Amino acid sequence: MNYIDSSLKVVGTRPIRPDGVDKVTGRAVFAADTRASGMLWGKIKRSPHAHARIVSIDTSKAEALPGVRAVVTSADFPDIASEEAFVGEGPMNFRDLSLNVMARGKALYEGHAIAAVAASTQAIADAALELIDVQYEVLPHVIEVEAAMAPDAPILHDDLFTAGVTPAPTKPSNIAKVVTFKKGDADAGFAEADVIVEGRYTTQPVHQAYIEPHACLVTYAPDGQITIHASSQGHFMIRAYTAKLLGLEMSNIRVNPAEIGGGFGGKTLIYLEPVAVALSRKSGRSVKMQMTREEVFRGSGPTSGATIEVKLGAKKDGTIVAAKQVLKFQAGAFPGSPIGPGCMCGFAMYDLPNVDVVGYDVVSNRPKVAAYRAPGAPITSFGVESAMDELAIKLGMDPLTLREKNAATNGTKTHYGPTHVNIGFTAVLAAVKSHPHWKSPLKEGHGRGLATGFWFNIGGESTATVHVNEDGSIVAATGSPDIGGSRASIGMMVAEVLGVSAQHVRTVVADTASIGYTFVTGGSRVTFATGMAATQAAEKVVDELKRRAAATWDIPVEAVEWKDGMAYPAGSNAGAFEPLDLASLALKQARTGGPINAEVSVNAQGAGAGFGAHICDVSVDKETGHVKIERYTAIQDVGKAIHPSYVEGQIQGGAAQGIGWALNEEYIYNAKGQMENAGFLDYRVPVASDVPMIEAVLVEVPNPRHPFGARGVGEVPIVPPMAAIANAIRSATGLRMPDLPMSPPKVRAAIDAAG
Amino acid sequence: MNYIDSSLKVVGTRPIRPDGVDKVTGRAVFAADTRASGMLWGKIKRSPHAHARIVSIDTSKAEALPGVRAVVTSADFPDIASEEAFVGEGPMNFRDLSLNVMARGKALYEGHAIAAVAASTQAIADAALELIDVQYEVLPHVIEVEAAMAPDAPILHDDLFTAGVTPAPTKPSNIAKVVTFKKGDADAGFAEADVIVEGRYTTQPVHQAYIEPHACLVTYAPDGQITIHASSQGHFMIRAYTAKLLGLEMSNIRVNPAEIGGGFGGKTLIYLEPVAVALSRKSGRSVKMQMTREEVFRGSGPTSGATIEVKLGAKKDGTIVAAKQVLKFQAGAFPGSPIGPGCMCGFAMYDLPNVDVVGYDVVSNRPKVAAYRAPGAPITSFGVESAMDELAIKLGMDPLTLREKNAATNGTKTHYGPTHVNIGFTAVLAAVKSHPHWKSPLKEGHGRGLATGFWFNIGGESTATVHVNEDGSIVAATGSPDIGGSRASIGMMVAEVLGVSAQHVRTVVADTASIGYTFVTGGSRVTFATGMAATQAAEKVVDELKRRAAATWDIPVEAVEWKDGMAYPAGSNAGAFEPLDLASLALKQARTGGPINAEVSVNAQGAGAGFGAHICDVSVDKETGHVKIERYTAIQDVGKAIHPSYVEGQIQGGAAQGIGWALNEEYIYNAKGQMENAGFLDYRVPVASDVPMIEAVLVEVPNPRHPFGARGVGEVPIVPPMAAIANAIRSATGLRMPDLPMSPPKVRAAIDAAG
Repeated sequence: MNYIDSSLKVVGTRPIRPDGVDKVTGRAVFAADTRASGMLWGKIKRSPHAHARIVSIDTSKAEALPGVRAVVTSADFPDIASEEAFVGEGPMNFRDLSLNVMARGKALYEGHAIAAVAASTQAIADAALELIDVQYEVLPHVIEVEAAMAPDAPILHDDLFTAGVTPAPTKPSNIAKVVTFKKGDADAGFAEADVIVEGRYTTQPVHQAYIEPHACLVTYAPDGQITIHASSQGHFMIRAYTAKLLGLEMSNIRVNPAEIGGGFGGKTLIYLEPVAVALSRKSGRSVKMQMTREEVFRGSGPTSGATIEVKLGAKKDGTIVAAKQVLKFQAGAFPGSPIGPGCMCGFAMYDLPNVDVVGYDVVSNRPKVAAYRAPGAPITSFGVESAMDELAIKLGMDPLTLREKNAATNGTKTHYGPTHVNIGFTAVLAAVKSHPHWKSPLKEGHGRGLATGFWFNIGGESTATVHVNEDGSIVAATGSPDIGGSRASIGMMVAEVLGVSAQHVRTVVADTASIGYTFVTGGSRVTFATGMAATQAAEKVVDELKRRAAATWDIPVEAVEWKDGMAYPAGSNAGAFEPLDLASLALKQARTGGPINAEVSVNAQGAGAGFGAHICDVSVDKETGHVKIERYTAIQDVGKAIHPSYVEGQIQGGAAQGIGWALNEEYIYNAKGQMENAGFLDYRVPVASDVPMIEAVLVEVPNPRHPFGARGVGEVPIVPPMAAIANAIRSATGLRMPDLPMSPPKVRAAIDAAG
Repeated sequence: MNYIDSSLKVVGTRPIRPDGVDKVTGRAVFAADTRASGMLWGKIKRSPHAHARIVSIDTSKAEALPGVRAVVTSADFPDIASEEAFVGEGPMNFRDLSLNVMARGKALYEGHAIAAVAASTQAIADAALELIDVQYEVLPHVIEVEAAMAPDAPILHDDLFTAGVTPAPTKPSNIAKVVTFKKGDADAGFAEADVIVEGRYTTQPVHQAYIEPHACLVTYAPDGQITIHASSQGHFMIRAYTAKLLGLEMSNIRVNPAEIGGGFGGKTLIYLEPVAVALSRKSGRSVKMQMTREEVFRGSGPTSGATIEVKLGAKKDGTIVAAKQVLKFQAGAFPGSPIGPGCMCGFAMYDLPNVDVVGYDVVSNRPKVAAYRAPGAPITSFGVESAMDELAIKLGMDPLTLREKNAATNGTKTHYGPTHVNIGFTAVLAAVKSHPHWKSPLKEGHGRGLATGFWFNIGGESTATVHVNEDGSIVAATGSPDIGGSRASIGMMVAEVLGVSAQHVRTVVADTASIGYTFVTGGSRVTFATGMAATQAAEKVVDELKRRAAATWDIPVEAVEWKDGMAYPAGSNAGAFEPLDLASLALKQARTGGPINAEVSVNAQGAGAGFGAHICDVSVDKETGHVKIERYTAIQDVGKAIHPSYVEGQIQGGAAQGIGWALNEEYIYNAKGQMENAGFLDYRVPVASDVPMIEAVLVEVPNPRHPFGARGVGEVPIVPPMAAIANAIRSATGLRMPDLPMSPPKVRAAIDAAG
């Protein structure tokens, strides 16, 4: 059923957060809060070298240390074959994942896992790590993306040959893949252009910087039955990957989802779980592992740093006639940067006749990248939206007008293939135009920037169940870890369908053995896909409730109407009966046919693409180079905001992360390829005083493929901030900052250079 | 679908126990193994008096003790109204349950909960209990059932008036209820009898003596969301009763089922959970509670002690023409003994024309009784089967022949109403007749006894889900705590339907939020009812697998056959396709329509009644009065043994408990009404050296109402032992022992009295 044009009583309101109290009172149980009787502590020994051959590993001294129960190295893991999978928002090769979890033969980055121990205390485990004697042959290393592409660069993988080029190369390379998209004839387009702008931009890798480090508690029983408590964006993902990396049958693994303290894409793959399983198997005890913040930085994935070249050509009236982009993405030590979406998203907002995009996926001696909120899109958009700003300046045109002129609409064929349908980009631009922030005069010394952003959003496989309790209260269960408020949104959709209050429905995240398969919480898919499954399950429950009422009244089920949580006889022939409410039908469910429940699994299609536009006012301190965000407005088409507060929170959170990416966050490497700022004191994420109140404006262009019109909202908001801030700095100072982060030293240097 | 006449590959075999390794290696997580960050320990202050008015409770000193975070009394619980529910196998009044959980106004037995504390350590909690000042006015008490029925007995409840009598009484009484069943004309029957026997028998209350004391861990969040980890026979029962006793909405309570270390009926109600919720609510912290063994004895339910009068009249040829029974059951401090089944089961094995049964449910100052394996049946059968033995002796007839002559068969109308259908009692008696034990000559000095037993078995509400993992392995989830091997039996039925091995299916017990409502594990209902739900869920999965195969081949689903875990094209028109196995269909499930799962809820009807017969050889040491069980054979109609080892285990376990009940177990009270043997040193359950190898003989008369023919097996085996042993002692010594336990002092006294 479709409720888009219905009058809604629950969806769109702001009930109290069902996950709020537990989180603010410290009661929520994260993976690090779990423990088991007699459990051991697992710790990982990591490579101090950016690139080195592992000559030998002697674990005998560590094993002899009292309290040490197991030591594992790559010898304890199967040497698995190359096999591709799709993980949330990007490709994943299980062989690479296995080698990332435990190095085999070579250490490919500083922090790469070499061995692991399980011991009775954390202190003994730490001492045991020191006793593991690893002999390395240190190799030349390469950190930066363009250096890694150089013909004479140190090669990470002897068996890596560039894909996507013809003829197939005969020499190994750090370029894993070349991606190209073409539409029309870009060169011909530029030939027609009145105005051309060109720019070269760089972004730094930034970490997802979730507050909760990776942690898990694993028990391997001697009969091979495994229980895992872990925090992740997908406990079914943990089950699948752990099974794959260790060659186990999935039914022997039960994964319990702990509360998750942020993921942002970075918890769509695994680091610790297979190691903990191997340690538990070897020691015969439960094993708990928990990364330090330093390990999170050195050992888990940031998103790519990149180089972005953009060239735009336009007619005098602002019509863009040609666009080119060259993207070089760091993949870290294994292939798999978000170069694909990087090549697609930058120009996805615009209706362009001639486009030429080339992207490179490049390995270097850094931690393997992981997905980070709209993977690839913020990087590509930093380049494109900065260049759009330059184009507007060169045309002498308002930047909003330039975008309106070229905006993608329904029917726009993208340069990467699909045609946009049911999108709300023009509605977003209209909202910019009419917003008080956009219309307000600039304050003295302030600059204003505008940038837009796009994300696909995805659907996929989800399962949801709706159970009617004996007292008529409702429990909905899903397989989707709740990161951004999905317990609230799922419960509200169920409540709306059933005609009860949001408080009447409790939503839980069920473990891998208790609910059907559900893909990761990623791609902004949960409220869309899991919501669709839950809505259908609730509809099945309503159908069953109507059947029970019909049987009670002995009338045909067609003569029963469900409204506001009650069954009514409907139509003139139905007869006169007192309506039956949920509680009374629930009370009698045993006698009228047994418990009333429904489980629905879907592979949801038709996630509506998301578009946003951010307006940012800044001031720049010319003494220090410090950029202050003075006002920030984020406008986004959210389809339908199921619980507007969570949606606003997503937009504010995404913008705040974008502000950090824009102004401060970066990886600092020394000459040996070792990270020098692996901690929150030196890797500077925004704190409250760095960020103004971010005004989130919800534009609602319903997605007809979702019962309530929802589209993903979590990823778009991190796309525009870097360019919006760069454009605002340009407006305030006249300086174009092409390199992230636009930190005080860099801004001050740019001011100095400009005189 | 019905598989009774199918050739089966999994059902009926003996795969390795899926719950075995965890239990024997100490890994299984029982409620006492759970903990939470910052949790407190809850402890209960119990009445030292058997009957006393609570004049005042001063908790101020306890509250002032450092480390004490909360003290609760009945003032912290709502004073709820009387409301009946059906619990597993008997009635339950929520007001009584509430008063049993926390005394209000009066303490009704020694051990009755008066107050509770939550403190940071167990030692502080114990100290705080001592600081709670309770002023009592001690009242006269009554322990024994016939004393409690006396007109001048101390009255426990001023508002308890005997039900089931006319005219309705005007004075309160300890007799809660009088139950009567009549069939034909018993007096006329006795007038026709050639031989009459009469006897008066007594049984002692015996505790279920589960190895695991009651325990729970409860977290009450400030927004009213409650998480409970508990060991029980039904986590949905815990949810429902806790909600009821505290006036909460069920959806706010999530109960996680811990592994259960024995229940035998005694964990079909609650003691600690509402108290822990009240303490957690008051303290704002998680609260763990765990009974000591002494508390289990003093504070939780045994089954009734009873007086049983039996009168049988028969023709010379052994045809029984009349039967009478008067049963007086202790209910403990609140009404609710198993007097109903007591009145039904004793004569249920026989086809009797004239029956007259009267039963009394009587309160006294003992712990409230709880269900114990076939509640009421062992008590009533001790009397009836002892009397049958006496009748056989008086008739000069073999006791088996007497039973064969009067055996109930299909079509026999019982004295309590229903007509027996699909029963296997005559098959059981035939198995006795042909068994080597029965045919073997008695050894010198040994005696042999025979007794039979009956239990209804029940069906009811169950939910099961079957999930197809991405690798084709299978997970089945149910809401039934696994006490007697239901993970094995459920998984095997699912495997059989899917055509895969038992190892391919993992069965789990899901929490109350993750699966649909499921009634308690009791009444021997799980393999029957939950098995039915799981079988249907597996069939739905097969249907879906066939649809996916049909879609893959582009042929009608009717042209697909499912066999041995594979889809085959069937029939001449289906086309020639390679068969698709579960793994390949599972791998493609996302693309062929999404995850493949099914959830089925049933209210199962048609649980087949169970009958058994036990043969027991004993020797009696005339010096000490010690009875040694020399040989023991338990024969039972099990319908269909899904996993024969577990069925045999159930039969052996039931017989062993019956041997303890027969020979040693009893509650010893002092003059003040205090229990003097509240521990396993003094309350003597059988140990390995007390019990011979019990041979379990499985008779399989399929129950056509279950897909595989199963009927409940767990309760029947505790019914015959007491009479079988008494009859064997009679055979060995010539002495009739009418009073349980037939412990050495009593047997020696009987020998002495007989000279």
